[in-house]
Amino acid sequence: MATLGKETPPHPPLIGNHSKVIRHTGNFNWHDIPLEAYKETTDTWKGVTRRELSGKRGESQHFHVRYFEIAPGGHSTLERHEHEHVVIPLRGRGEAQFGSYIYRVGFGDVVYVAPNDPHQFRNAGEADEPFGFLCMVNAKRDAPQAADGTGICYICE
Amino acid sequence: MATLGKETPPHPPLIGNHSKVIRHTGNFNWHDIPLEAYKETTDTWKGVTRRELSGKRGESQHFHVRYFEIAPGGHSTLERHEHEHVVIPLRGRGEAQFGSYIYRVGFGDVVYVAPNDPHQFRNAGEADEPFGFLCMVNAKRDAPQAADGTGICYICE
Repeated sequence: MATLGKETPPHPPLIGNHSKVIRHTGNFNWHDIPLEAYKETTDTWKGVTRRELSGKRGESQHFHVRYFEIAPGGHSTLERHEHEHVVIPLRGRGEAQFGSYIYRVGFGDVVYVAPNDPHQFRNAGEADEPFGFLCMVNAKRDAPQAADGTGICYICE
Repeated sequence: MATLGKETPPHPPLIGNHSKVIRHTGNFNWHDIPLEAYKETTDTWKGVTRRELSGKRGESQHFHVRYFEIAPGGHSTLERHEHEHVVIPLRGRGEAQFGSYIYRVGFGDVVYVAPNDPHQFRNAGEADEPFGFLCMVNAKRDAPQAADGTGICYICE
């Protein structure tokens, strides 16, 4: 680090609507950012963790940026909602399902999930490392609904 | 790739509000995504390119995702605006300046630029590769204003 006239700039407070840098400390961990469970435990997801990177600590942009990891053999809930997802994998490989299609995805691919499209993210079967990805969503958004097979078939017709 | 019952899912059209995958083809290029100049040429920026990854091709989320690269010795405009930036470097190293502070940043760091904070991104002097980063902004946003030294000092008081 360097500043104009100083050696080390101050570490800005984590909370508040001021400019800040959240440091990646290596291996997909970030300074002061806790590891969270994906959401309340249900039997519809497995092995998923979340880190809230921007948008929930006083920042005012109209979107949230999160980093998710799915452990080998794990998967997110098969769900649908009105709000969109933009997902960019950074670590490992995984599967992105929307509608009846499954895409193998890896570093740098950009997955857009359109409104109300049932979708699921999974760690590819042969993987031995987490499948990690950035996931951006609108700050104001509706709650997900579980999508069962019927829902999937509905949109596939 | 694999699908439910098919070997290869179709490549969805690039334009439209449907789910899609934009393929990273390696070395920070994406299938069908053109390399663009940063903005109309001025004397305030140098060596900056942009790729629009999501939000400008029919997608409906409330934010845009872009990938910028700054060549060695290059820099973005020193500017300010009401809308926020969330920047996540993916390639090389660079400097993020906001207010009077300069932070050296690299892969995975999360830079939040608050409303109206003068800011600039630069490729670090010793670098021999591009400084590349994702940059997320609100879809509806105000135009940037150049920030001169006076502006910088104003917010530093």
